[in-house]
Amino acid sequence: MQPETQKLLKSFYKILEKERTYSHALGVMYFDLETICPDKAKEDESDVLDYFANRSFKLKNSDRAKSLIVELYARRDELDELDKVLIDKEYEEYLKTKNFTPQFDLQLNRVFSRAGIDWHRAKEASDFSLFRSSLGKVIEYSAKAVDKRENKLPSLYDNLLDDCEKDVLQADLDGFFAELKEGLIDLIDRIKNSKHAIRTDFLSRKAPIYKQQQFSEYLLSLNGFDFTRGCLTTTEHPFTSDVAHHDARVTTHYYEDMVLSNIYSVIHEGGHAIFMQNEPDEDYDHYINDSITNGMHESVSRFYENVIGRSRAYVKLIFPKFREIFAQEFPDVTEEEFYEAINVVTPSLIRTEADEVTYGLHIVIRYEMEKMICSGAVSLDEIPATWNRLYKEYLGVEPTCDRDGVLQDVHWSGGFGYFPSYALGNAYNAMYLDEIKKDLDFYALIESGDFDTVNKWMRTHVFAKANRLTPKEWIVDITGKSLTPKPFLDYLNEKYKDIYRL
Amino acid sequence: MQPETQKLLKSFYKILEKERTYSHALGVMYFDLETICPDKAKEDESDVLDYFANRSFKLKNSDRAKSLIVELYARRDELDELDKVLIDKEYEEYLKTKNFTPQFDLQLNRVFSRAGIDWHRAKEASDFSLFRSSLGKVIEYSAKAVDKRENKLPSLYDNLLDDCEKDVLQADLDGFFAELKEGLIDLIDRIKNSKHAIRTDFLSRKAPIYKQQQFSEYLLSLNGFDFTRGCLTTTEHPFTSDVAHHDARVTTHYYEDMVLSNIYSVIHEGGHAIFMQNEPDEDYDHYINDSITNGMHESVSRFYENVIGRSRAYVKLIFPKFREIFAQEFPDVTEEEFYEAINVVTPSLIRTEADEVTYGLHIVIRYEMEKMICSGAVSLDEIPATWNRLYKEYLGVEPTCDRDGVLQDVHWSGGFGYFPSYALGNAYNAMYLDEIKKDLDFYALIESGDFDTVNKWMRTHVFAKANRLTPKEWIVDITGKSLTPKPFLDYLNEKYKDIYRL
Repeated sequence: MQPETQKLLKSFYKILEKERTYSHALGVMYFDLETICPDKAKEDESDVLDYFANRSFKLKNSDRAKSLIVELYARRDELDELDKVLIDKEYEEYLKTKNFTPQFDLQLNRVFSRAGIDWHRAKEASDFSLFRSSLGKVIEYSAKAVDKRENKLPSLYDNLLDDCEKDVLQADLDGFFAELKEGLIDLIDRIKNSKHAIRTDFLSRKAPIYKQQQFSEYLLSLNGFDFTRGCLTTTEHPFTSDVAHHDARVTTHYYEDMVLSNIYSVIHEGGHAIFMQNEPDEDYDHYINDSITNGMHESVSRFYENVIGRSRAYVKLIFPKFREIFAQEFPDVTEEEFYEAINVVTPSLIRTEADEVTYGLHIVIRYEMEKMICSGAVSLDEIPATWNRLYKEYLGVEPTCDRDGVLQDVHWSGGFGYFPSYALGNAYNAMYLDEIKKDLDFYALIESGDFDTVNKWMRTHVFAKANRLTPKEWIVDITGKSLTPKPFLDYLNEKYKDIYRL
Repeated sequence: MQPETQKLLKSFYKILEKERTYSHALGVMYFDLETICPDKAKEDESDVLDYFANRSFKLKNSDRAKSLIVELYARRDELDELDKVLIDKEYEEYLKTKNFTPQFDLQLNRVFSRAGIDWHRAKEASDFSLFRSSLGKVIEYSAKAVDKRENKLPSLYDNLLDDCEKDVLQADLDGFFAELKEGLIDLIDRIKNSKHAIRTDFLSRKAPIYKQQQFSEYLLSLNGFDFTRGCLTTTEHPFTSDVAHHDARVTTHYYEDMVLSNIYSVIHEGGHAIFMQNEPDEDYDHYINDSITNGMHESVSRFYENVIGRSRAYVKLIFPKFREIFAQEFPDVTEEEFYEAINVVTPSLIRTEADEVTYGLHIVIRYEMEKMICSGAVSLDEIPATWNRLYKEYLGVEPTCDRDGVLQDVHWSGGFGYFPSYALGNAYNAMYLDEIKKDLDFYALIESGDFDTVNKWMRTHVFAKANRLTPKEWIVDITGKSLTPKPFLDYLNEKYKDIYRL
């Protein structure tokens, strides 16, 4: 590397270090806002967040920072491997935002913050009309922001998809979802015809929250979550937050009558956190630690939640503790009944409560909705009815209120394009499940609770390069194959054949 | 007001508004650091805090801000009442810090942050030597900071006292503490000779934390704490934080075997929060809402904790709920036994666990220590032994380890001068207890749980002007009298005569 390049890189690192300080502060505030911030303080805190997010934007979009990015990009061939990854990422982001004014950036953030607040209120009131205008602004400003890009793709939705899952665009997803949908509908039909009855009477049985908390902490520790570098707390809508290098925070929401639902929410979020806690330190040192895509992340969280968490082996492992903690509440439930109940397949209204099989159709519906909204084929006013129609058509159930329908998910208040990541996550993890099973006696390790070995494999194969590769490169790197829903469909068919005696 | 003055004031308000944005962010981060931040993330988060505190310092110490303060101070006679309060306060602060460089401000903050971290570790290891060097820096930098002041008082300690309790200096406190000490020692002697035995066997009985949490929430709501503008969570060392206008946060630490201790910690911290939640909105609009002194604040927290919380009337009010929640743990404890146990007088090592009577001596010891440390009469190395000697002399007990001795309190990691505020708080609140009893049938209202009426009186008489007056002016405004420990001693004598049959 030429000394001049070295100097430029050093200067750029200084800016990134400062940006990291801002992003640490923003991470803390965002987490606070979503967890403990009192109701009447939320709007003020949200304004403070927007203010500092805007300061951070200015930092990265100063003339000095922009010229450093351009100059370093011109010298990228001189850079080390990880600095190349950094500069490519930064240059791409630069092309996206170089035409934003700080005012526009602030407006954009405010549109999303305000939409988040309005969505909360609309959901509480179960009234889409309270979210309608905010959602309109989200669409309007998403389009405006895309329009300012120097590297924009022809369709609005492709740009948004690309933000969530680099290079995985509508052309890829149309085929992917068509195959997935067909496979799922076929399996669901066969399950419907199964005579095998699964006991579910205990699913809404109550248990005190402190016991659920105790069990949640047990599960996270068991799975390899490091509490000295993270924590578990409560929120309205569970999420995991990468607040800082040694600070991966898991949240959940305890309901007295949804014990099993909480268990799988915690395992899911814990999966995200384990991913965060196992990124290579080198990535952090090169400021590329924030580059994991949503699909990669969901593949891991859903791997822990479903592939591991809903397996027979894992149920064998955790059931004794479950019975110990919930001795009073679930004295009559057997391990087999537990296993079947967490895998019962029932078309339903709420995505986050859906089983592994019907889950994919919830995503297909959202994908089709997003395409129609972004292309203008569905107007704001038509959104709830279209949603309800698709639920009826794909899952045979119809929401009777907005809360259980179009308002159930927070995502759209932050923009479009995230939902496909969940389905991609399932597809990715089924693909690397095939690999881990070649290398390890996977389910035996799970049954014995040997997460050291499992997580080590994940670290080497799945986590290590996630910041450095695009999703398309990454899945080939792990499995030697390109994205396909087939292994996921095979995984489901095999698992549910057994459960439903198909 | 001349148009030019109006213009200057408007410009200054803009800076204050920005400072408020910083202080909101800092409040959130500080709270996070002390409550949920994982162990291994603390140092990074503390650095982020220091960074933004320093940015905030620069904002207020810019040439523009400084000249606005000076110009507005010159025009103070034109200002409205509350703007006068603001400018007086700002001008005084300006004289204190105008000679600080931003580097010095950052160093100063880092010294305190680092001392906080070292104190934690030293306390955990019960080893003063791990805190010694940090404490030395605290003393050194406190002296350096005072030395840079344009408005400094002759002695170091007076400056630090003045920071905590405006205008209440060593000359006032020497007399105050002499009288207090004499009165307390006399009462303690008489209690020692009392034949009345108080049952205390249940004080360390265990109860599950979720029940303690439930009872804590009940107590806060009962006392008038507004959960829509505040919250309750846990920490290592309980405190209350005024994060933002509608955001007063209470923390506690639950120990399974210290149920009663937690109850009074929560009521104490809740008192601080009720004060915060009842400051006039006008004070907030004029940026003077942060002007309540420590002594004023402690007077209120200790009013709720002791004058109310440890009264017969309050025990009558809360005991049924206590018995309901802790039916399994305390089935054999009567209301009278509860009342006596929370008021048992025993010379002990730990300030925060001390009873109302011996508590004052814990403060006398700290006051004498602080005087000696600040004057250089006691060296760093002599601190632990001097502490132990004073405990032996005043309370007849001697710490066997630093954790139960000189390391028990966090305060010195943030500087000297706070401790006298606790004793002043007791004196103030006993003075206004005499007033509230003239206006209201006070204990009857407590017994009936009518905190609306009690808090309304507090709002009108105690809270309303706390931001606007110095403590000396304020106590005269409420009671017509100047600070004296006599009403506090009278209050104790009357209460404990009854309890100990003196």
